[in-house]
Amino acid sequence: MSSCFGQHLHLSLFGQSHGEAIGITMDGFPAGMTVDMDQLTGEMARRAPGSSSMTTPRKEPDQPEFLSGVMDGHTTGQPICAIIRNTNMHSRDYGQGVDLVRPGHADYTGHVRYYGFEDWRGGGHFSGRLTAPIVLAGTLCRQYLKTQGIAIGAHIQQLENLQDGSFLDHPHADFQKLHDMILPVLTDGLEQAMEAAVLAAKADNDSVGGVIECMVRGVPAGLGAPFFDSVESILSHLMFAIPAVKGVSFGDGFGFAALRGSQANDSFCMENGRVTTVTDHCGGILGGITDGMPLIFRCCIRATPSIAREQATVSLQKNENAAITVQGRHDPCILPRAVPVVEAMTAIGLMELWKERAACVR
Amino acid sequence: MSSCFGQHLHLSLFGQSHGEAIGITMDGFPAGMTVDMDQLTGEMARRAPGSSSMTTPRKEPDQPEFLSGVMDGHTTGQPICAIIRNTNMHSRDYGQGVDLVRPGHADYTGHVRYYGFEDWRGGGHFSGRLTAPIVLAGTLCRQYLKTQGIAIGAHIQQLENLQDGSFLDHPHADFQKLHDMILPVLTDGLEQAMEAAVLAAKADNDSVGGVIECMVRGVPAGLGAPFFDSVESILSHLMFAIPAVKGVSFGDGFGFAALRGSQANDSFCMENGRVTTVTDHCGGILGGITDGMPLIFRCCIRATPSIAREQATVSLQKNENAAITVQGRHDPCILPRAVPVVEAMTAIGLMELWKERAACVR
Amino acid sequence: MSSCFGQHLHLSLFGQSHGEAIGITMDGFPAGMTVDMDQLTGEMARRAPGSSSMTTPRKEPDQPEFLSGVMDGHTTGQPICAIIRNTNMHSRDYGQGVDLVRPGHADYTGHVRYYGFEDWRGGGHFSGRLTAPIVLAGTLCRQYLKTQGIAIGAHIQQLENLQDGSFLDHPHADFQKLHDMILPVLTDGLEQAMEAAVLAAKADNDSVGGVIECMVRGVPAGLGAPFFDSVESILSHLMFAIPAVKGVSFGDGFGFAALRGSQANDSFCMENGRVTTVTDHCGGILGGITDGMPLIFRCCIRATPSIAREQATVSLQKNENAAITVQGRHDPCILPRAVPVVEAMTAIGLMELWKERAACVR
Amino acid sequence: MSSCFGQHLHLSLFGQSHGEAIGITMDGFPAGMTVDMDQLTGEMARRAPGSSSMTTPRKEPDQPEFLSGVMDGHTTGQPICAIIRNTNMHSRDYGQGVDLVRPGHADYTGHVRYYGFEDWRGGGHFSGRLTAPIVLAGTLCRQYLKTQGIAIGAHIQQLENLQDGSFLDHPHADFQKLHDMILPVLTDGLEQAMEAAVLAAKADNDSVGGVIECMVRGVPAGLGAPFFDSVESILSHLMFAIPAVKGVSFGDGFGFAALRGSQANDSFCMENGRVTTVTDHCGGILGGITDGMPLIFRCCIRATPSIAREQATVSLQKNENAAITVQGRHDPCILPRAVPVVEAMTAIGLMELWKERAACVR
Repeated sequence: MSSCFGQHLHLSLFGQSHGEAIGITMDGFPAGMTVDMDQLTGEMARRAPGSSSMTTPRKEPDQPEFLSGVMDGHTTGQPICAIIRNTNMHSRDYGQGVDLVRPGHADYTGHVRYYGFEDWRGGGHFSGRLTAPIVLAGTLCRQYLKTQGIAIGAHIQQLENLQDGSFLDHPHADFQKLHDMILPVLTDGLEQAMEAAVLAAKADNDSVGGVIECMVRGVPAGLGAPFFDSVESILSHLMFAIPAVKGVSFGDGFGFAALRGSQANDSFCMENGRVTTVTDHCGGILGGITDGMPLIFRCCIRATPSIAREQATVSLQKNENAAITVQGRHDPCILPRAVPVVEAMTAIGLMELWKERAACVR
Repeated sequence: MSSCFGQHLHLSLFGQSHGEAIGITMDGFPAGMTVDMDQLTGEMARRAPGSSSMTTPRKEPDQPEFLSGVMDGHTTGQPICAIIRNTNMHSRDYGQGVDLVRPGHADYTGHVRYYGFEDWRGGGHFSGRLTAPIVLAGTLCRQYLKTQGIAIGAHIQQLENLQDGSFLDHPHADFQKLHDMILPVLTDGLEQAMEAAVLAAKADNDSVGGVIECMVRGVPAGLGAPFFDSVESILSHLMFAIPAVKGVSFGDGFGFAALRGSQANDSFCMENGRVTTVTDHCGGILGGITDGMPLIFRCCIRATPSIAREQATVSLQKNENAAITVQGRHDPCILPRAVPVVEAMTAIGLMELWKERAACVR
Repeated sequence: MSSCFGQHLHLSLFGQSHGEAIGITMDGFPAGMTVDMDQLTGEMARRAPGSSSMTTPRKEPDQPEFLSGVMDGHTTGQPICAIIRNTNMHSRDYGQGVDLVRPGHADYTGHVRYYGFEDWRGGGHFSGRLTAPIVLAGTLCRQYLKTQGIAIGAHIQQLENLQDGSFLDHPHADFQKLHDMILPVLTDGLEQAMEAAVLAAKADNDSVGGVIECMVRGVPAGLGAPFFDSVESILSHLMFAIPAVKGVSFGDGFGFAALRGSQANDSFCMENGRVTTVTDHCGGILGGITDGMPLIFRCCIRATPSIAREQATVSLQKNENAAITVQGRHDPCILPRAVPVVEAMTAIGLMELWKERAACVR
Repeated sequence: MSSCFGQHLHLSLFGQSHGEAIGITMDGFPAGMTVDMDQLTGEMARRAPGSSSMTTPRKEPDQPEFLSGVMDGHTTGQPICAIIRNTNMHSRDYGQGVDLVRPGHADYTGHVRYYGFEDWRGGGHFSGRLTAPIVLAGTLCRQYLKTQGIAIGAHIQQLENLQDGSFLDHPHADFQKLHDMILPVLTDGLEQAMEAAVLAAKADNDSVGGVIECMVRGVPAGLGAPFFDSVESILSHLMFAIPAVKGVSFGDGFGFAALRGSQANDSFCMENGRVTTVTDHCGGILGGITDGMPLIFRCCIRATPSIAREQATVSLQKNENAAITVQGRHDPCILPRAVPVVEAMTAIGLMELWKERAACVR
């Protein structure tokens, strides 16, 4: 359990923020795929800090090193292990250790679970930095899925109180254009407003949250299964593994609550000789199984808990109330960096579903 | 995969709406628990149809039959298998078979996944009827958890456009009172308004959806793990296994999007010598691990897709557009019956987390 | 885990010897296979007691009842659950309960593991009777594998001190002929000698053990994986799940100990344009992966522990030494009935490997 | 699947003989254990080549590097990843690539499974070198088990035709003495005879196999489960993951075939107020569950397939018969190096069973 995932594609995530290295092993990845290292480096860079005024200036090269599973530029079908060395560790920024637990962080719960033996430095194994190997693994999956005609894109559907449109109304949105934006949105001009909101929060020593909407095009009908391994179950399982995600919904999501059955149902129709639906309220999933329409879902991302303000907390060592001002440089808004993580997790989930489907022999 | 769940508690769900029986095997359940059969029968009855004007009049006794794992009224620690015979099957209500696929149902996707060999009668394995064995298994888990001081309750937080309050503001809500209501709500008088909304939709040959909020009290800090087996991952995986659930969120859920970090963080404080938080925005989970506060989350339930109206669809046999009017008697609002299912799934998830925690030896 | 198996084909075994029913759920089985009920009944009968003078006269019809997953004579691709009712229970034969623990049985260890809450009646969940649902599930797998050109056979390679030849020297042995023999052997006349040995032990109120050798023909090269999911790991895992199996070996097995490398290696050669090996010392497996040659392995079966003699034991209730004479009618030799169980388990293992292979997309 | 193991302790093995590094991730390991690095280095050295005239002179330091999961000398409870860099790669020894497949090796089957994309250099992921990270992970498990009073030892029970005694007759054998021997045996003087047999084979450009017997003392009754997760299933699954293991047996093993029930049964008796058995034919396991007696089992190890002789094979590139003389320096007898691997795998298996038992809450 814990940092492992998958029945068909096996991931094992490891590392701590201030340890030697972070990384991931991925077993079950297809053999013979040519790895596009440039694209991989590009995805890593999207997630890396320091790329804009909205993110922490902490600079990490995040250069992945493949220890196994890739030879002569292609995957071997054998376990892939890739690591990222930790090079830019400002341990002194983080204080004396797990005494004053940071609100909104796992300092306290990690302390309980690991009986006080956890690596608390910089968040340890809980650090958002661990999403770097997730992007790494997910990007390989994404490259494979691309060879099967599957494309993944995402945008910031909400940032604080600013709302963007929805993929539900823009099923043909330009993924490349979104990919190139720091704050990817469907609505012209919204990017600037969102940036202003982030900078306002930053000036206020505060942080903002939002919602990321993700779409997958080219998914054939028939992936997934009813009940415990529905597409929703697999994808939500993965999305909630991303630190700061507190809500996941599919298609119309929580909007379904106010829709009547007659409004919520997607009618079927024939299109060019194949079955499709007229609308996509369900987000491309019926009975836990893909229906061939674009897969659309949302993740709510809470505002970064690390803020440069004094907060009430407790001292674990003195067992008394205390105050903490979290040191270090942090992101006033994690959403730009979370977008490639959501996309990568989506690729991991689809790879798992793809392999599960392939095992459904007749 | 598919109809199985769990690393520590193993569930295997089986059966079709119009087959011989539906049921579940559950392996890994603790030995020596006295089964409270009355309470079990009561939970089964809460989920069963026919209990009010808002649900389908289809009458099923849903009497569970234990084939194994229970002896002399206590669990043996060995695999439990319990089944429910199908007795009240109106096959003729459902038409000639999988030709006209019902919008909002899995008829089409099931047809693709199972290559046309699926049991399509009455929804087959996809039927909401399969939630009966889930309630069965979950109720046993719930009885065990009760011996550990853990209590589970739920209410209808939203029905169409009618909003109830939140457990976030009512952490001490009376679970027994909610349990006894057909439409359990925190707000006085709201039950009648909700019932009226359901009956209005029914009169309109339509159906309504909503949101169920669930709370678990008495959960100790330290259950769950970061990343792939976060409490959120495990619980959302299970919730999305319930047919019709399209969104799951924890604590403030999608409301987090509009909160700044300073608003979203739960400060820590000492209370009677132990660490707790002042608020519970996070729903009792930090870094994927329980923090000792009540666990609070929401599930959005889409309106029942089966409505007594003509809808556009396709004929799989003729490969052409068609119209369908779904016959049979259906629930204008599934929420009252979904409440015990959400509670049962919650108990299953907590049992899995409980056992995982127990395996974390030092 | 315990009574569950499989990453791709999920089995969940349940039931106790003297409970309501025994059975199995099998999830992940291919859709669209026509079930040969006659062949299934035949395999069940091979395992059932009472078929010869060598087995217990306890008569059980062992008629499987499919609760789910089979419709109109074909598999649906959805979870299969099949049960066998317990009808012929001589509870009084088994005495006062788990007081005097039977040597060679799990009475004592089950008592420890399940904290005294186990169903001890007639061996409970540990009973060899639980192999009936294994034969049931395995036979379905076998029917599927047959459609892929894979055939499974077995013979009694040793019974007490009587040795039969080996499939290693008889790769083209007649499976049908073996199938029809009560004591299947490759050597003419050996059956009679073996029967005499069994009857001699029976007359002596004793029982005999032996070795079963199994062969699978038609397995393509490329099934299995190195290390933790080698073909040997998967098959031995399953074989040791059969009560009374105490040794499993592949190809030359323990005979390898005395062979030098030059004797043990199987040379490669071209045969009709494809790669094969000249000999099959390795039993068709290299590096954990099938090589296209017949898969050959052996299981050592210890003599039935239930013998009609007084044996030294302890009283769990009085915590003192005691003597026990196991009542009831038991098999002087379990091997004839174990042969179809070994074959069925083999089919289960191959089905798992077959699906794993199918998931290895490129 | 493939290079992963465990439901409670999760292992993910990676690396290729001539890649950047080999290593293992281990998730679920207990928090707070002080790592004895000297003992760990010692176990790594036992497995490493070059320690005697009987092993390949290839010298590798095999110094493990912990990337995660260990801090200030203790385990954190979070995923452990440790790697071993590959430094001593004589690629030129191995020729032009996967053309001439080596008899007894996985060159051919790996080629089929991985569609020709596998890393074939020096055996790639199939290399016996991958047992180094297994020893690493297993030694950590062993250190934990030692804190629980569990001790593991092994000896060479057979080498070619030379037989040693059995732990069945020497339950109190001196583990430390065996640990310090290059060819650990119970019989005085046998070590010299075995060494002579190895050197004779070496002089003959050949190799020898044998049998390793392993014993675990201090295992409490109650670990393991019936059927699919019997102690035998778990341990055999792991043992057959060791390259070259072709047979695994428990207690009297294949010797059970010739024993009658009356001879094979272990009588129970009271000893110092607790239940025990008079003999240990069953190797400490009844019904798949430990009975509190020493756990005893054997692994047959085939002779190293790499021998300095010309052997018949095929050319995959030319699709024709060919001859191969495997270059490089190889072990005439792998048994001395396999002993610590068997012990380490045993520790891994017991750690899994230990955690599974801990999850069996009441």
